[in-house]
Amino acid sequence: MSIALVILAAGKGTRMRSDLPKVLHKVAGAPLLAHAMASGASLSPERTVIVTGHGAEQVKAAAREIDETATCVLQSEQLGTGHAVLQARPALEGFSGDVIVLYGDTPFIRPETLEAMAEARRSHDVVVLGFTAADPGKYGRLVMEGDALMQIVEFKDAGLRERAIDFCNSGVISASADTFFALLDRVGNDNASGEYYLTDIVALAREAGLSATAVSCDEAETMGVNSRVDLAAAEAGFQSRKRAEALIEGVTMTAPETVWFAHDTWIGPDCEIEPNVVFGPGVTIENGAHIRAFSHLEGCHVSRGAVVGPYARLRPGAELAEDVRVGNFVEIKNAVLDEGAKVNHLTYIGDAHIGEKTNIGAGTITCNYDGVFKHRTEIGARAFIGSNTMLVAPVKVGAEAMTASGAVITKEVPEGALAISRADQVNKLGLARKLFEMLKSKKASQAGSKG
Amino acid sequence: MSIALVILAAGKGTRMRSDLPKVLHKVAGAPLLAHAMASGASLSPERTVIVTGHGAEQVKAAAREIDETATCVLQSEQLGTGHAVLQARPALEGFSGDVIVLYGDTPFIRPETLEAMAEARRSHDVVVLGFTAADPGKYGRLVMEGDALMQIVEFKDAGLRERAIDFCNSGVISASADTFFALLDRVGNDNASGEYYLTDIVALAREAGLSATAVSCDEAETMGVNSRVDLAAAEAGFQSRKRAEALIEGVTMTAPETVWFAHDTWIGPDCEIEPNVVFGPGVTIENGAHIRAFSHLEGCHVSRGAVVGPYARLRPGAELAEDVRVGNFVEIKNAVLDEGAKVNHLTYIGDAHIGEKTNIGAGTITCNYDGVFKHRTEIGARAFIGSNTMLVAPVKVGAEAMTASGAVITKEVPEGALAISRADQVNKLGLARKLFEMLKSKKASQAGSKG
Amino acid sequence: MSIALVILAAGKGTRMRSDLPKVLHKVAGAPLLAHAMASGASLSPERTVIVTGHGAEQVKAAAREIDETATCVLQSEQLGTGHAVLQARPALEGFSGDVIVLYGDTPFIRPETLEAMAEARRSHDVVVLGFTAADPGKYGRLVMEGDALMQIVEFKDAGLRERAIDFCNSGVISASADTFFALLDRVGNDNASGEYYLTDIVALAREAGLSATAVSCDEAETMGVNSRVDLAAAEAGFQSRKRAEALIEGVTMTAPETVWFAHDTWIGPDCEIEPNVVFGPGVTIENGAHIRAFSHLEGCHVSRGAVVGPYARLRPGAELAEDVRVGNFVEIKNAVLDEGAKVNHLTYIGDAHIGEKTNIGAGTITCNYDGVFKHRTEIGARAFIGSNTMLVAPVKVGAEAMTASGAVITKEVPEGALAISRADQVNKLGLARKLFEMLKSKKASQAGSKG
Repeated sequence: MSIALVILAAGKGTRMRSDLPKVLHKVAGAPLLAHAMASGASLSPERTVIVTGHGAEQVKAAAREIDETATCVLQSEQLGTGHAVLQARPALEGFSGDVIVLYGDTPFIRPETLEAMAEARRSHDVVVLGFTAADPGKYGRLVMEGDALMQIVEFKDAGLRERAIDFCNSGVISASADTFFALLDRVGNDNASGEYYLTDIVALAREAGLSATAVSCDEAETMGVNSRVDLAAAEAGFQSRKRAEALIEGVTMTAPETVWFAHDTWIGPDCEIEPNVVFGPGVTIENGAHIRAFSHLEGCHVSRGAVVGPYARLRPGAELAEDVRVGNFVEIKNAVLDEGAKVNHLTYIGDAHIGEKTNIGAGTITCNYDGVFKHRTEIGARAFIGSNTMLVAPVKVGAEAMTASGAVITKEVPEGALAISRADQVNKLGLARKLFEMLKSKKASQAGSKG
Repeated sequence: MSIALVILAAGKGTRMRSDLPKVLHKVAGAPLLAHAMASGASLSPERTVIVTGHGAEQVKAAAREIDETATCVLQSEQLGTGHAVLQARPALEGFSGDVIVLYGDTPFIRPETLEAMAEARRSHDVVVLGFTAADPGKYGRLVMEGDALMQIVEFKDAGLRERAIDFCNSGVISASADTFFALLDRVGNDNASGEYYLTDIVALAREAGLSATAVSCDEAETMGVNSRVDLAAAEAGFQSRKRAEALIEGVTMTAPETVWFAHDTWIGPDCEIEPNVVFGPGVTIENGAHIRAFSHLEGCHVSRGAVVGPYARLRPGAELAEDVRVGNFVEIKNAVLDEGAKVNHLTYIGDAHIGEKTNIGAGTITCNYDGVFKHRTEIGARAFIGSNTMLVAPVKVGAEAMTASGAVITKEVPEGALAISRADQVNKLGLARKLFEMLKSKKASQAGSKG
Repeated sequence: MSIALVILAAGKGTRMRSDLPKVLHKVAGAPLLAHAMASGASLSPERTVIVTGHGAEQVKAAAREIDETATCVLQSEQLGTGHAVLQARPALEGFSGDVIVLYGDTPFIRPETLEAMAEARRSHDVVVLGFTAADPGKYGRLVMEGDALMQIVEFKDAGLRERAIDFCNSGVISASADTFFALLDRVGNDNASGEYYLTDIVALAREAGLSATAVSCDEAETMGVNSRVDLAAAEAGFQSRKRAEALIEGVTMTAPETVWFAHDTWIGPDCEIEPNVVFGPGVTIENGAHIRAFSHLEGCHVSRGAVVGPYARLRPGAELAEDVRVGNFVEIKNAVLDEGAKVNHLTYIGDAHIGEKTNIGAGTITCNYDGVFKHRTEIGARAFIGSNTMLVAPVKVGAEAMTASGAVITKEVPEGALAISRADQVNKLGLARKLFEMLKSKKASQAGSKG
């Protein structure tokens, strides 16, 4: 059965107290919307429709960046979830498969759960996703008879017997496109808030002699984000699951609770991650690498045997080959470091290629920016870059070349050459002592004149 | 009614195992005493009297720094809380309003609680602050009849019926100055420890036909600090409340449990704070700024749209205008950065003014210290400071000027000028190769001679 | 009574999913095996025998490094704990004291517990270590009558009455060498897994008319490590105990849960440790030192009154005398800093000696490595090293000498001299402006040609 996703992403999220549309707030480095889309993508949907409203342009831009085939439709007035789904109808013109409705602020529905819903659709016309709530509170209750979903009772309409039910409505729902829109056409807004409720289609389906059921998932999957407290809780939930997974897959973490993963972090077995490491999006770490404390990695690749940190920052485009060593207070951006290269202290390498076994001295800087353009630095294999070398890009240093400490390299250094640019050292005897005395007597006279 | 605070701060705090007087240990960057004084200050007291004892001089100096109008009196012997309050009498000569007794090691009494006590004083002669204890343990019990406080029973004197009471004495107490001292004069020390107990005044008040009542607060407010374990718990309590407040006010924190606030940190809505950020005292962050991971800020101001970190350290006097960018391994101290200025990597800016849109290259240092004096660096707008520029202060760089990589700037650079101080690069062909071979053969011969 | 330890360390640890033998995974910076050995060492054993198996060579090397007197024996097939202990017999030839069996993956048995076992051996032939389990699960149960241990019943063989017992077997066991091996000779492998179980000796002892008892310890002591989840839990347990101890001993920690100790960290009273500090092995901090946030220390010594960090990295061999100041983005390795020396910003000091009260300017680097050898830098007292000085080792700077900003020091600077190596600053008027215009027009033309 072909599938279309309809993802509701129009809400303002007033309780977020933010100018940013709610679904663009991030968990694990990706917008909530991206999580919802990723979860739906596991069904290989034929079409994906995002219903936007508040901040529609921003949401549309973000949705396109995540999946350029997604269609965004605008719900210009917020008249309820049923109304929201109806806005997707034109975008589903000619589509006759199944529609599943997800929520842009509900990031954690698992692929397995959606597959179970798709499976349940084979035997029922309407499938709702439910969960057993630890504290059912004000959730809508799912009234079941066997595997038949009889009705969804909103908390405020629920009697005592219904309030005792702890199987609750997540809002996620599926039906064939035809059924969906036929039923939605009949949903009214004759209620206190004057809104069209998506959940009403269950009762309408049963009135029409159709069958409905509910599939159950973990409560954690249905977690929605309505405030920054929720957002922090969602992040904490994500991190806690990801940390447990990494431990089980053979990653050593001294203090797992101080390691932050992004949604797509990949770390091989027998890696060691010390306390206080932050992974931004786009990081892959091969087996057996060692990430030391206080490191920050984004958009980079670290190969086997490499050691990174403490206090290393790898920015997008950093590619570390096997056995590379990046040490403390070092920043690497858009640069390839070949096997065994070492950059141990207080260095900035940007827009560069460093050859194998090359050693970069402390305080080295690739001067890659001239105020307008960025330029590249190329360093060959087994070179030795002296401490505090300035590599004024574009510039090349050949294999097995050396630069002297404090050199400013503005033109190519040939293979095997030593480049030097340095004024001779002059020792002015006794001058330091004289200067100190001068400064101290000045200070004493200032103190005297104040006193 | 005019109010006088009496804050007891004489205790040694033996269990702290510290040379520092207990009330000077810090929570959220401020001494415990400062928290107690701040809490009392919400009542706009006419007089504030600190009763000092152990480490009196240190406590006095700290108290004066917090509030120069505070009076410190010395309790030279530790003869109990009643005796301590009596030491405040000379300092309250001629004062006829209400006295409220607070504790220098009890940092979290809320202003609302003190206001409720002041309110209760309108209808009762003596007002005690109580709390419902989760585990009443050895606290003194407050025996109430309706809203009348009948007596305070110490745990060791309590019968079974009284031990079942969970409404406990915080020690905070209020009465008119006249009542207070009249009653205190009658407190005796005929008890096991030979001390004069402040709490005895409740029984004495009732004997004298005066009315007493108790006001209730949260147990967390009454938390006292007697050990470093307590101190860490107080800090944790403070942080947890402050983090929750920040989330509710619209601050995004990926990992709130890793952000440390000071007592006076102010952060606007729609700011984003990444994991592992430490705020020392005196920080204000405007709406929409972004503080990245591993940053450390004290005594600084960050404006809208500015991005700080990761690994940025802003020290006192750092003023970042809108859209300023301070990047990794950068320290800013006592410096104003105008709108759009960028200081992205491995830099120290101290005692300086950086003009708008100016770009500071990696490795730049303001050489502000000559061993005795500090000097200033002034850089104009839209300047470009090349990597590893040394700015030997006092020095000026004009607007739209440039410095070449590795320049040592000792005299003014005029507007639009390029300053350069650099020896020419010389490539000595083959010399690196020769040096490598020499070093390696030396190593081999050393290894040989050892073998 | 003389004691011999037999430590079982042959297991593969399949659930670790690691190439590293299980007992070599680390907690608090030391291999699990080292913890087990340290715990046994408190009995001053006459012999220590490690039974190796998987990764025998690696385990042997590690064991020797921890205690060069330890003997390693190989269990070439994994035929059960009884079989493992039998492998130790040749290494205990001629030994007639007590044998105690410990486990290389069980790091937390306390010395007091082992002493209690030794004490119990005076009155019983066989002594087993038991613990009261919060959740007895599948542990073997210890069936006691008074202080007599009647039998150890494996969970799978236990009836309902036995399953109700919560006093469980830790596996640690002690007997005289003669008794031990006599009983082990009779242990069979007629069971489902075909293994020789060490625990069978209790039943055999009783059959032979010998007495057995059990000593009880905290469940936390018996924690074994079988997966990286366990390893992280063991680390967390260690840290939590060590943090509590440090607080009680008078160390202030703002956020104890963010400070990581090594097994041997020693911190004096009245030290202050800010959030996010990592101690590797070999650190001692004297009373009253202050370690600021985001610092990382290994193999170093910090004296009274010294202030370290934030963002300071002290590596092995860093020796800080009293009142030394090491500031942000500074790395110190194998270097002695005399009293009152200051290294405040962005500096690398390696293989050096810094004299008292000497001030090291920002950006200073000891160029200690020539690609093959490491060399030393010696700086005298009260010297002033200007910002960005390169100290090309081996090199000496005399007392009260100065170096100018940006100097590259390749030869000795005499006492009181000022060393300078600098090209003169040249201001090329208008040239910056011209360059900016050129770059901008180039950018505009590129943008144009793309459009």
